[in-house]
Amino acid sequence: MSQFNQPMSGLVVPRFGGLSTFFRLPHVTLEEAKGIDIGVVGIPWDSGTTNRPGPRHAPRQMRDQSAMVRRMHQVTRVVPYDLVNVADLGDCPVNPADLMDSMKRVETYYKTLVGRGITPLAAGGDHLCSLPVLRALGEQKPVGMIHFDAHTDLYDSYFGGFQYTHGTPFRRAIEEGVLDPKRSIQIGLRGSMYDNDDFEYGEKMGVRLVRIEEAIEKGPKAIMAEAREIVGDGETYVSFDIDMLDPVYAPGTGTPEIGGFTSREAQALLRELRGVNIIGADVVEVSPPFDPSGLTAYTGTVMMFEIMCAMAESIAKRRS
Amino acid sequence: MSQFNQPMSGLVVPRFGGLSTFFRLPHVTLEEAKGIDIGVVGIPWDSGTTNRPGPRHAPRQMRDQSAMVRRMHQVTRVVPYDLVNVADLGDCPVNPADLMDSMKRVETYYKTLVGRGITPLAAGGDHLCSLPVLRALGEQKPVGMIHFDAHTDLYDSYFGGFQYTHGTPFRRAIEEGVLDPKRSIQIGLRGSMYDNDDFEYGEKMGVRLVRIEEAIEKGPKAIMAEAREIVGDGETYVSFDIDMLDPVYAPGTGTPEIGGFTSREAQALLRELRGVNIIGADVVEVSPPFDPSGLTAYTGTVMMFEIMCAMAESIAKRRS
Amino acid sequence: MSQFNQPMSGLVVPRFGGLSTFFRLPHVTLEEAKGIDIGVVGIPWDSGTTNRPGPRHAPRQMRDQSAMVRRMHQVTRVVPYDLVNVADLGDCPVNPADLMDSMKRVETYYKTLVGRGITPLAAGGDHLCSLPVLRALGEQKPVGMIHFDAHTDLYDSYFGGFQYTHGTPFRRAIEEGVLDPKRSIQIGLRGSMYDNDDFEYGEKMGVRLVRIEEAIEKGPKAIMAEAREIVGDGETYVSFDIDMLDPVYAPGTGTPEIGGFTSREAQALLRELRGVNIIGADVVEVSPPFDPSGLTAYTGTVMMFEIMCAMAESIAKRRS
Amino acid sequence: MSQFNQPMSGLVVPRFGGLSTFFRLPHVTLEEAKGIDIGVVGIPWDSGTTNRPGPRHAPRQMRDQSAMVRRMHQVTRVVPYDLVNVADLGDCPVNPADLMDSMKRVETYYKTLVGRGITPLAAGGDHLCSLPVLRALGEQKPVGMIHFDAHTDLYDSYFGGFQYTHGTPFRRAIEEGVLDPKRSIQIGLRGSMYDNDDFEYGEKMGVRLVRIEEAIEKGPKAIMAEAREIVGDGETYVSFDIDMLDPVYAPGTGTPEIGGFTSREAQALLRELRGVNIIGADVVEVSPPFDPSGLTAYTGTVMMFEIMCAMAESIAKRRS
Amino acid sequence: MSQFNQPMSGLVVPRFGGLSTFFRLPHVTLEEAKGIDIGVVGIPWDSGTTNRPGPRHAPRQMRDQSAMVRRMHQVTRVVPYDLVNVADLGDCPVNPADLMDSMKRVETYYKTLVGRGITPLAAGGDHLCSLPVLRALGEQKPVGMIHFDAHTDLYDSYFGGFQYTHGTPFRRAIEEGVLDPKRSIQIGLRGSMYDNDDFEYGEKMGVRLVRIEEAIEKGPKAIMAEAREIVGDGETYVSFDIDMLDPVYAPGTGTPEIGGFTSREAQALLRELRGVNIIGADVVEVSPPFDPSGLTAYTGTVMMFEIMCAMAESIAKRRS
Amino acid sequence: MSQFNQPMSGLVVPRFGGLSTFFRLPHVTLEEAKGIDIGVVGIPWDSGTTNRPGPRHAPRQMRDQSAMVRRMHQVTRVVPYDLVNVADLGDCPVNPADLMDSMKRVETYYKTLVGRGITPLAAGGDHLCSLPVLRALGEQKPVGMIHFDAHTDLYDSYFGGFQYTHGTPFRRAIEEGVLDPKRSIQIGLRGSMYDNDDFEYGEKMGVRLVRIEEAIEKGPKAIMAEAREIVGDGETYVSFDIDMLDPVYAPGTGTPEIGGFTSREAQALLRELRGVNIIGADVVEVSPPFDPSGLTAYTGTVMMFEIMCAMAESIAKRRS
Repeated sequence: MSQFNQPMSGLVVPRFGGLSTFFRLPHVTLEEAKGIDIGVVGIPWDSGTTNRPGPRHAPRQMRDQSAMVRRMHQVTRVVPYDLVNVADLGDCPVNPADLMDSMKRVETYYKTLVGRGITPLAAGGDHLCSLPVLRALGEQKPVGMIHFDAHTDLYDSYFGGFQYTHGTPFRRAIEEGVLDPKRSIQIGLRGSMYDNDDFEYGEKMGVRLVRIEEAIEKGPKAIMAEAREIVGDGETYVSFDIDMLDPVYAPGTGTPEIGGFTSREAQALLRELRGVNIIGADVVEVSPPFDPSGLTAYTGTVMMFEIMCAMAESIAKRRS
Repeated sequence: MSQFNQPMSGLVVPRFGGLSTFFRLPHVTLEEAKGIDIGVVGIPWDSGTTNRPGPRHAPRQMRDQSAMVRRMHQVTRVVPYDLVNVADLGDCPVNPADLMDSMKRVETYYKTLVGRGITPLAAGGDHLCSLPVLRALGEQKPVGMIHFDAHTDLYDSYFGGFQYTHGTPFRRAIEEGVLDPKRSIQIGLRGSMYDNDDFEYGEKMGVRLVRIEEAIEKGPKAIMAEAREIVGDGETYVSFDIDMLDPVYAPGTGTPEIGGFTSREAQALLRELRGVNIIGADVVEVSPPFDPSGLTAYTGTVMMFEIMCAMAESIAKRRS
Repeated sequence: MSQFNQPMSGLVVPRFGGLSTFFRLPHVTLEEAKGIDIGVVGIPWDSGTTNRPGPRHAPRQMRDQSAMVRRMHQVTRVVPYDLVNVADLGDCPVNPADLMDSMKRVETYYKTLVGRGITPLAAGGDHLCSLPVLRALGEQKPVGMIHFDAHTDLYDSYFGGFQYTHGTPFRRAIEEGVLDPKRSIQIGLRGSMYDNDDFEYGEKMGVRLVRIEEAIEKGPKAIMAEAREIVGDGETYVSFDIDMLDPVYAPGTGTPEIGGFTSREAQALLRELRGVNIIGADVVEVSPPFDPSGLTAYTGTVMMFEIMCAMAESIAKRRS
Repeated sequence: MSQFNQPMSGLVVPRFGGLSTFFRLPHVTLEEAKGIDIGVVGIPWDSGTTNRPGPRHAPRQMRDQSAMVRRMHQVTRVVPYDLVNVADLGDCPVNPADLMDSMKRVETYYKTLVGRGITPLAAGGDHLCSLPVLRALGEQKPVGMIHFDAHTDLYDSYFGGFQYTHGTPFRRAIEEGVLDPKRSIQIGLRGSMYDNDDFEYGEKMGVRLVRIEEAIEKGPKAIMAEAREIVGDGETYVSFDIDMLDPVYAPGTGTPEIGGFTSREAQALLRELRGVNIIGADVVEVSPPFDPSGLTAYTGTVMMFEIMCAMAESIAKRRS
Repeated sequence: MSQFNQPMSGLVVPRFGGLSTFFRLPHVTLEEAKGIDIGVVGIPWDSGTTNRPGPRHAPRQMRDQSAMVRRMHQVTRVVPYDLVNVADLGDCPVNPADLMDSMKRVETYYKTLVGRGITPLAAGGDHLCSLPVLRALGEQKPVGMIHFDAHTDLYDSYFGGFQYTHGTPFRRAIEEGVLDPKRSIQIGLRGSMYDNDDFEYGEKMGVRLVRIEEAIEKGPKAIMAEAREIVGDGETYVSFDIDMLDPVYAPGTGTPEIGGFTSREAQALLRELRGVNIIGADVVEVSPPFDPSGLTAYTGTVMMFEIMCAMAESIAKRRS
Repeated sequence: MSQFNQPMSGLVVPRFGGLSTFFRLPHVTLEEAKGIDIGVVGIPWDSGTTNRPGPRHAPRQMRDQSAMVRRMHQVTRVVPYDLVNVADLGDCPVNPADLMDSMKRVETYYKTLVGRGITPLAAGGDHLCSLPVLRALGEQKPVGMIHFDAHTDLYDSYFGGFQYTHGTPFRRAIEEGVLDPKRSIQIGLRGSMYDNDDFEYGEKMGVRLVRIEEAIEKGPKAIMAEAREIVGDGETYVSFDIDMLDPVYAPGTGTPEIGGFTSREAQALLRELRGVNIIGADVVEVSPPFDPSGLTAYTGTVMMFEIMCAMAESIAKRRS
């Protein structure tokens, strides 16, 4: 019998029964969280979205769909819930009416969370939510990042100089010194482009930019070996934009780009995270209004589970 | 400041945020329920369905959609949460693999619930779930019933003698002596028929059968006046089958019958429940796979709220 | 035990089981049809559609959905299958690649059908299919018509003089002398208009044009009393365009017009067909691609059943 | 032959052909607009939405669906395009990343539009977009308003003091002196409530608040007679929130409230606008992601056409 | 001209026309079946489903979609209808209200079918339906099996000891001695796991368990060569669970697991069935409520056709 | 600053704003087109469809979705709008009520277009629309063709001798001498077959037929190298049937065949068009009613962009 929180089993209570929490884990509020190693948290926010909104609804749909994820990893046979203590912390506070206020709320929440020794695993939210998260995690020292995405999110501004959208978070994070570009890699870049500006900025700053064509040609093992080398032993954030997947695997997203990864390829990539010193992660840009079936959200929660397994091993190792 | 549980307000936390509970109320398990007047409970079960399954998924979708129901009734200005203490009790235990075992589990759960002085307001489940509920509520003495439905659910058996389906619960309940047919009324009956068997049985037993044509002609006030007279002051169960509504208002159900009530008419009917001695209620037959949009579930939760307002007044009155 | 074909009962074989035929009746081909009074037939064709195609798929979806219609009428308690012999004749031959050839095929098929003493009840197809049907039924003598529709379908031509579209069948039928305009009534007309041309033509020819506003104000009984007076004892065709219903009741159609009848109102109208000498009928313009849920098709089959009940009584009366 | 812009006719070019403009009218930019009486304009913006976003996509879907609206009104036989010159002005500039900047852009655009003698008929956008519109139209003198809605939109603030959401525009407009509360009426109010705050504010300021129950009981003619009396001969804005309709008629909206108007009732209300001195109007809160079928948007454009007919008559009368 | 039943050709009757039968073949009841080599049969049943129900509707939707499958195999140019006599036998009797009774009905039906020398090709149904099928086919001697699935379906029990669900059929079949575990292979296993119990049981009994990772790495030819070696010349059942496919290829299923086979890979696997002594087969777990578009059902029928081609060659070879 | 038409940028005007044109380019009518190199044109027509209609709605949905395609190619960094002048020419005239008249209209329109020195890039329409296009382009001399499709479209006739359907255009084009079979290649052929007739005809005439299995085995580079060799330097048409893609990538089409290309594979193929002398192209068979989400249409517009890039380079090279 594990000493840690265990998910309700579908062999006992049918998976359609009971209240929805992430992975059918107990819900504890951040205030009452004690002895929690991994805090699964929702960030229901999409004010940074420039085209099709919706990720504000993602945490709810992802909690619902996560009931279909069982406790043991199919390949490694790791049960993260046996290694560390995991809980659903509920949703981070946001303000849909004020972008700047929301960023402040997220940052404050994350600082509290980190202060309690919890490693965060978030369900976004659009990608702008990674910026206040990095402000909290990289406050002391810029963190490295392994970033799966169709887009660099390194643009400078939109609509006549507006600097905070889901196309700009990592440029801001680099400028603010909370993200270390030289310890950052972006995998899966593709899609028609406005211009070269984001790529040029990334290259200039030392971010490793991996286009989908290169990623497919080299294969997941080689790409991830390079990723592990780039981030090294340092603290590393993992950001998984659901649009790294081909839109047929993730139609429920705001900026779909065809020609993406299959979910099988994505799983192969994430399984190579083992050994990385993961201090936080997110799966973002799931947009329920564009996929009422919930398959995008379901896929997102499987990706969260893949990351959670690596994260749990990483925490267990640090601890031992 | 109310002394009772209050729903989270959408003016404070956006309605898409936070974990899903019925009406954004606190969740307490039946075991820990203390001082609860009304227990909102899910019955995620559909083994009695003879055609299109799905209501097992209803409690989850209804919790989600109930976030859009605010705290004050639009006409009466009643705030039920100020009158009595309401909580989400979670889901009642069921077994999708064994119909008889499920009925046992529901009955047992309800006896505990009633034993704790809680008035149950359930989100079904297919209509067969009302049978074990009535077994618990009518154990001492048969209860009366105000029943909104397109169907009598008074059939004898299906498929060569099988007695437990969502078309038979009230015939069983009458036979078992837990439902008083003479204090029962069914409103909204319609749809093509197999034969006259169910109507003849109902009439013979003294159930008041109100067809949709009669209900529309007489209007909600007259019909409900008669209903109140039939049930009198005695203990009365309210059962609301979502298919009493026209399928355009409730496409997400298993046995849609065209030509039904509008939701406005349904609300007018439910608002006449004031003064009835309600000892329990359910809203059943919501089937999410047949309405991914959630509007059927949303409508079902508004009907629950209408009933809850009458129920709260009834409890408050009993208490005073 | 009836001497006639009986539908498979949902109390014996669940309604999702077995092959799809109209109302779960036996299928007999026109060639082998003997002793059939009412032949239910599909006309899978939509070449006359000027905007959104799809009715070619209607017969299939309507067969599927008709499994939910039971054998006894809810109000009159008539069981048409006890009065006359009804069968599913399958689909009428069509040619999606050639409009004129299709009309020829339908006309020929209907002449054979009529020659065998069968009264046809069709599931269209777009409304142009009523033209070859009337050519067969009105060959000897123009027939009268009770026509439910949002549109007059009395336009002259489209796209530079093309005379055969689903907006023109009844103008052609009048011109060709197979439809008697003075014994014709159109009920439910509405929607923004190109111009006054169709109304003026109808009025000039003596067709009674009933706009939705008038129909609602007078009510179903008065309107249908007038309809019965107009058609008198003579041979009368009933044509029910599903777009007479408000689009919320029938989203699956090609030319939706808001502000239409509810299905309850439509049923009230059709129930007043009793006593009319019905020699054929159709329910047309169901378009499955615009309603994958099947509710439009289901509604269409209930309307067919309403008409079938009146038709069966009419045939039984003629026979006795 | 009319001297004014005419829509492309579906009898000439099929309705699925050609570029999408509102009502198939010519597109002219505001800069080049000359001799335009009514400017149909899109406001693709939803930053004021507190729950389910989407109206930013409305103008595009509404242009597409408006191809099904023909040129002549079915009851009055008015052809607005014969009375005045109407054009599609394209979309008003907005900024999805900055709420305050967007309001500024809309106000500026509208001031230019008004300066050119154009009467605006807008397709929103969430309801907050009516605020900058009123700032432009009511700059000189507060305007009156006939407002169809399930909600008062008279709340003070959300999420801890935020004053600009789609629940607050008319409180702001009254406070700013651009809307005359005593010449304002709100019709169709319903839905569960947070509290009494918005109603109390409205009543205190002299706004006439008509709940759905009252509107149904009195009927469209009486209610609108009162509305015409309230606004008198003065300049009057018409604001039509699509959620005044029951959600079955308008599922594609952000804050559905069951028990609303049918589209037939809504048309009856709008047809009583004749004689009102309309200086601008909008149809808002259509949310395409919640209704991919487009029926909500289609219904919205028919409502725009109903208003346009009254508006055209009003302008023609002023001119003559 | 073939001596056998031929499907109606889409070059003659359009594919949307006519009654729906499997592959547009003639329908003959089991009672009247004579000279039939392959009987295509529906098993409309899902009482074994532990989470999302729906496969009871699969045979109907699959018949409909199978109209798009033509008569000749694209690679081998085999026309199965020229080799053997194939017919649609309709649906096997079931009882949605009683799981044990249903299993009895299926077993009895299959024994009759087998007794008439017919090789069955079934459209399920959830996977529990394979158990009564194996009871009939393996009555004399345990059969071998080539099984494509994401899950082993070798669990022991659910919900406190219930032994018959769609997660347990093959454990029961092995225990009952109707399935030979040493002549069985399962291909495509994946997805998060409850625990190791099912794998350990399978390994202990000698079932060859092939995880998706291994299947992809070795490729279809190598895996199927091993499969053919394992089953040898003996009687072999083929069971194809639609969830072996990635959910993007088969969203309409009850237990989707991401990272599965593409349909191209699945076809490559099935084409290697040539030479296997196939005595029966099924395609199960298609769930129409979760894919109204019908693409899952369509894909399922193409898989049935692939199997039918191998089956026809196998029968023809035995006969010659 | 380019001298040519530029698309509106999503960094300036949000992508949901403004009127829908292809790629957000200016719209100019064919009559006023001057100095246009590439004319993007819609052919809203589907009268050739033998099963599921819908492509008449494709140009509108594709214009809408094309707003998500940015201006620079992700791999080559080519910006076609900097090389040549591109415009949206609107829709080609058609007649949904008369197939032969429509073909005439398309041919006439294309002759005018070609006469103005414009290279056409079309959004169909079903595949029959390629026939009148080839009649215009190949009038002087038969053109070569690189054709991506699941089907050969080389059938002779349907439904008893009808020669013009979407299954016959290229047989007609070869017979009429406007398409050179020896300079033609078809890539991606698959799906069950009626018979061998179309393949035999193609082989006899010298068309290179590449089945999907061969295409996958050899890979995009080898296949396209052969394609370039076959068409040589001569004038070449590119026809892209969206059903060359697997149905999961393009569910919105009339004749889906499973086991097709992924969109990544399709892009890889199209990128090898560089160097081909492209004188026209089309993307056909997108059917919006079967994909309301628009992903099929979006994918189609990305394919158009891939072709446009090669086309622009080809034109620029010819010019220089």
